[in-house]
Amino acid sequence: MSPSNYDEKWMLRALEEGWKGIGLTSPNPAVGAVVVKDEMELGSGYHHRTGLPHAEREAIADVVAKHGAEVLHGATIYVTLEPCSTVGRTPACTSGILENKIRRVVYGAVDPNPKHAGAADTLLRGQGIEVTAGVLREECEKLLRPFAKRITSGLPWVIAKTAMSLDGRITRPPSEGQWLTSPESREVVHQLRAQVDAIIVGGKTVRRDNPRLTLRSEKGAAEKEQPWRVVLTHTGRESLPQDFHLFTDEFKNRTLIYQDKPLAEVLRDLAEKGCNSVLLECGGRLMRQFAEAELIDEYQLFYAPIITGGEDFGFGLGDHFKSSLTLKEVHSRSIGQDTLISGVVVRSEE
Amino acid sequence: MSPSNYDEKWMLRALEEGWKGIGLTSPNPAVGAVVVKDEMELGSGYHHRTGLPHAEREAIADVVAKHGAEVLHGATIYVTLEPCSTVGRTPACTSGILENKIRRVVYGAVDPNPKHAGAADTLLRGQGIEVTAGVLREECEKLLRPFAKRITSGLPWVIAKTAMSLDGRITRPPSEGQWLTSPESREVVHQLRAQVDAIIVGGKTVRRDNPRLTLRSEKGAAEKEQPWRVVLTHTGRESLPQDFHLFTDEFKNRTLIYQDKPLAEVLRDLAEKGCNSVLLECGGRLMRQFAEAELIDEYQLFYAPIITGGEDFGFGLGDHFKSSLTLKEVHSRSIGQDTLISGVVVRSEE
Repeated sequence: MSPSNYDEKWMLRALEEGWKGIGLTSPNPAVGAVVVKDEMELGSGYHHRTGLPHAEREAIADVVAKHGAEVLHGATIYVTLEPCSTVGRTPACTSGILENKIRRVVYGAVDPNPKHAGAADTLLRGQGIEVTAGVLREECEKLLRPFAKRITSGLPWVIAKTAMSLDGRITRPPSEGQWLTSPESREVVHQLRAQVDAIIVGGKTVRRDNPRLTLRSEKGAAEKEQPWRVVLTHTGRESLPQDFHLFTDEFKNRTLIYQDKPLAEVLRDLAEKGCNSVLLECGGRLMRQFAEAELIDEYQLFYAPIITGGEDFGFGLGDHFKSSLTLKEVHSRSIGQDTLISGVVVRSEE
Repeated sequence: MSPSNYDEKWMLRALEEGWKGIGLTSPNPAVGAVVVKDEMELGSGYHHRTGLPHAEREAIADVVAKHGAEVLHGATIYVTLEPCSTVGRTPACTSGILENKIRRVVYGAVDPNPKHAGAADTLLRGQGIEVTAGVLREECEKLLRPFAKRITSGLPWVIAKTAMSLDGRITRPPSEGQWLTSPESREVVHQLRAQVDAIIVGGKTVRRDNPRLTLRSEKGAAEKEQPWRVVLTHTGRESLPQDFHLFTDEFKNRTLIYQDKPLAEVLRDLAEKGCNSVLLECGGRLMRQFAEAELIDEYQLFYAPIITGGEDFGFGLGDHFKSSLTLKEVHSRSIGQDTLISGVVVRSEE
């Protein structure tokens, strides 16, 4: 294996660790790390939650617990994001690296915060540490996207989820049940909820479905705070049934109502609350407004194998957009009888 | 291998042969056959075109050409459809089997024509031939579907093809090009055209696109007659531009115009012309009418990774259908950047 393939192999392990933290770490980024010496993995870790140790500290602690601190001397640490060099709620990761005499640092993405970008790189090199940057950079940036979006734009990473019939409708004929998609797809939706910090719906959806918008997956229940449940309404909180789940269940303090607030301002407010990512689970009209305003970053579209007719479209009715939204990184997969097509929006500057 | 697995293995080979003829054989069915002795394939064949030999005769001739007629004694023939026992444009296949002292006949599907169903089975058994029926019956019936549909209902097997954006639209904003889907998807459409006997469009599509609706795939060019090009119009032939491809190219005698004819009657007329299968390539309004009337058997839906807004829907506008159409045998696959979701309509009696 060439040195660069070797580095990529271990960075993939660090990424694997990092993805364990997705949706748990806001307002911090999800980051993974692995410590390697003599082609052996000594330990690994990921950032679990704000206020808890960063991925590098987790990985170092894992090594110490398994093998003692001595083995860290001369080791290499792989980390998906440039280590932090400033003391925040936790001590700087660069000092952990230096204290433990780690010889080499390999990282993927540069810190998206312009105030910190490259700072650790410079600091570590100045202390004689061998530093390799940009290994699997694109993959590492994908893990970092929600955080980077918030840091660089003041808006969260917005994922739009819709379940549609093959003809683009979100409702069935009146004589049929409510659900379009299969239980398997709804389980995937719960996994999506466990990756975000807020779930946005419209008042109409609340009135119609009395949704809980809670986490039912194991990960959600065990590790993750209930995401904000955000209702956008023209008519205010009083217009919504006060005995509904959102206002009465154990997470009622995690319900937010925005009345007639511009969508970008809602998103900005959520970012200020520390949300790196939000999930849109709204109906067609609202979804269309988000899409047309180019506020959506990622689409997760479930297609049930039915054709329903009807007038409720996943992306509402109206004229053509000024220009089509185009997706990249398009993946399609079967989930039960449904098809999930996902992709990330190509920005016009790309 | 158990005897039934053994039979299934060879029936799969016969199916492979049979699919080579799909779209070429109307009004006959596509059928494949393979001759086996001592666990060796001696020869194979498929029905190429009406008036030419049936699959059994093709396979027998292949054996004779390769090994001489003697080896047929005691051999087994696998055929996807119950052999014919009547003399039509070609002699009965049962006599070919008997003359050549084939010992055993294994077939998949029963003849869908009630006048012939089981006739060959009885005849062959009466002559001391060992007969095994129903091997991979469901797979063999899939190959037979277009023919069986026409024989049993007087209507062709109807495949609906639409290329849509992810939000179900079939047009792009005016500033953009005409095509939604990739060249790869359009190539798959040409493969679909090569499987059918007629292509149906609406007058609006003709006026807008001046389509050729010809076969550009290799199979199409080499082996297959140009499918009928069927235009459904409210305003008659004179309302369509007479200098368009459909009226001037080398296949102009393969263009049919139906004015204000009920859709089921159009289909019945095409079946009477010998069409086992037709492909709908029409716009949203007409597609919706076919769908709502439950005249469609199979959907081939291409989704381009774009979201366009707009008012031209793949399945038009209107109220919910009386009940949703549900698909089975749902497959999704990536074609370039597009996703193709296909499936067969579940009939209410199923």
